[in-house]
Amino acid sequence: MLAANPVGKWLAATGMESDIVISTRVRLARNLVDVPFIVKASASDQARVVDTVRWALQDSGYLKRGKFIDNEQLTEEQGQFLLERHLVSPDFIEAKTKRGLYVSRDETISLMVNEEDHLRFHALVSGFDFPSAFDVVSKLDERLESQVGYAFSSKFGFLTACPTNVGTGMRASVLVHLPGLVLTKEIEKVLRGAVHIDLVVRGLYGEGTETKGNFFQISNQKTLGRSESEILETVTDSTRQIVDYEHKAREYLIKNLRVEIEDKVFRSFALLKSARILSSDEAINLLATVRLGVSLGIINQVNLSRVSKLLILVLPENLQAMLGERLKLPERDERRATFVRESLVR
Amino acid sequence: MLAANPVGKWLAATGMESDIVISTRVRLARNLVDVPFIVKASASDQARVVDTVRWALQDSGYLKRGKFIDNEQLTEEQGQFLLERHLVSPDFIEAKTKRGLYVSRDETISLMVNEEDHLRFHALVSGFDFPSAFDVVSKLDERLESQVGYAFSSKFGFLTACPTNVGTGMRASVLVHLPGLVLTKEIEKVLRGAVHIDLVVRGLYGEGTETKGNFFQISNQKTLGRSESEILETVTDSTRQIVDYEHKAREYLIKNLRVEIEDKVFRSFALLKSARILSSDEAINLLATVRLGVSLGIINQVNLSRVSKLLILVLPENLQAMLGERLKLPERDERRATFVRESLVR
Repeated sequence: MLAANPVGKWLAATGMESDIVISTRVRLARNLVDVPFIVKASASDQARVVDTVRWALQDSGYLKRGKFIDNEQLTEEQGQFLLERHLVSPDFIEAKTKRGLYVSRDETISLMVNEEDHLRFHALVSGFDFPSAFDVVSKLDERLESQVGYAFSSKFGFLTACPTNVGTGMRASVLVHLPGLVLTKEIEKVLRGAVHIDLVVRGLYGEGTETKGNFFQISNQKTLGRSESEILETVTDSTRQIVDYEHKAREYLIKNLRVEIEDKVFRSFALLKSARILSSDEAINLLATVRLGVSLGIINQVNLSRVSKLLILVLPENLQAMLGERLKLPERDERRATFVRESLVR
Repeated sequence: MLAANPVGKWLAATGMESDIVISTRVRLARNLVDVPFIVKASASDQARVVDTVRWALQDSGYLKRGKFIDNEQLTEEQGQFLLERHLVSPDFIEAKTKRGLYVSRDETISLMVNEEDHLRFHALVSGFDFPSAFDVVSKLDERLESQVGYAFSSKFGFLTACPTNVGTGMRASVLVHLPGLVLTKEIEKVLRGAVHIDLVVRGLYGEGTETKGNFFQISNQKTLGRSESEILETVTDSTRQIVDYEHKAREYLIKNLRVEIEDKVFRSFALLKSARILSSDEAINLLATVRLGVSLGIINQVNLSRVSKLLILVLPENLQAMLGERLKLPERDERRATFVRESLVR
């Protein structure tokens, strides 16, 4: 399994607009040319895919820069741990059939074998940076294609299990933090605008505007009939627009509601540094407010990177993996409080 | 008018059981023998009472150890200020007829002229201390009686406007802080028990168990047919019983719910030290929790006396008097937050 600490490089809070855009992700869906799609694949077909991909990763040198894990090796807790770290999908860890997972050491690359498609792999990088994410994932894509051979139609492009992925098989997304738009109550309008141009917007934890911590994932809806560069351009432009709205909202808040925002930020920071019992939900909300405070220069005792990493490390499985103990409630909430306090009070 | 700072000596948090019993008060109701009772008194009758009492206080030396204020000199804000400091009744400041108020410099003695009775005066002392309070109020009583002459019936005792005060005209009360009983949900039972033995229990801010900050005032219901010592004994015994219950509740909390209590206390303290906007209601609740934390030894950066004084100084008129400015909302809540922060962070 992966070590609990350090967390993925994508949480470094580096790169463009990293006060608003936490990370950029480009994911590709691919299927092997000579194996039935997952819905029709036999157990031995699936085992063959895992073996083929593992061999390809080994041969291409990727394996020595990361780890390959069979899903049979994974406990339910470890699956949740990977999910909390954005390395697998919920679907991946639920399945009982043979699956595999490759994760690069810095957690920039994740490759799931036998999820909805034979191959689903992404590059996840810090900040607003589609060129880097696309570059990383393309290199892996080319390498794998030359080794395993993809199901491809000259008419449709890459063939995938779900029609929405046919074509480029690409999903381009950003994870954005939009507390300014939520506080100024403009978020609904902005999200509606995004959906209007065929983007999908989802709360990172929960749906709609009720999302915990005001984190949102924005990605393209369709891939068929669009080239990679068209998709990247659409998502890039929209993200730039949303980032711009969020900047304006923050400027408005600082100009017109400075004391209210400072009150919110200082209270959240104080609670994180003093609570003795802390649920992961409350921790996420408080850390998210502190993240805004750091971005606005209200708090400077802590940096964006530390706050972003804590947002992952306070999650139940990451916390327990880091502490090296299984913890029941209420002890888990107590240990979380201690961990957060010690991370912030220095 | 009185200075905003220092506050009354009764907030010193000295005396017996001062972690639970904030203060002890003995109040006497008296009427002059040769003047109609307030409901029947003419304007000139009332003026005569004020003059007579002021003269008696001057003659007996009390006046040079305190201040005499005509209610006509009082603005509405100053009246509220006195009410917040427990020096007058709501009824006193509402009246438009001629009234007077004497307050000793340390705010131990307050004497209202022409409230419901010609004279209503109390001694208010820190902690659980009926002997001291009774001693102070008795001395003033004897002195005034010898100078002004009281309405007295050998059958009923001292005559008062309301029948519940006839007899000794005495009300003995304590102001107690019962967070332990509220948190263990035993408060209802204890309060019902107190009412059963003819005591009156009122929340300091609000009725019943919904009282802000868990402060309660316990006093005797009747005076007729009971001697001073009987009244004091009843209230003393009941208070001792309630104090005992509160001690046991706190022991239970510390033994069984230590982390939950610490969480509550540290969070409250942190919010007081970090908020940028603070209403008086929230300030009272947070200070009350911190008061419990100080009593339990969870917090030692601040003492009971400071917390008790802040509980008065955060009230709207006391705050504004202390800052020397009239402040509208939201500015008042901002200045309150600054004041509390500066009082607690050193």
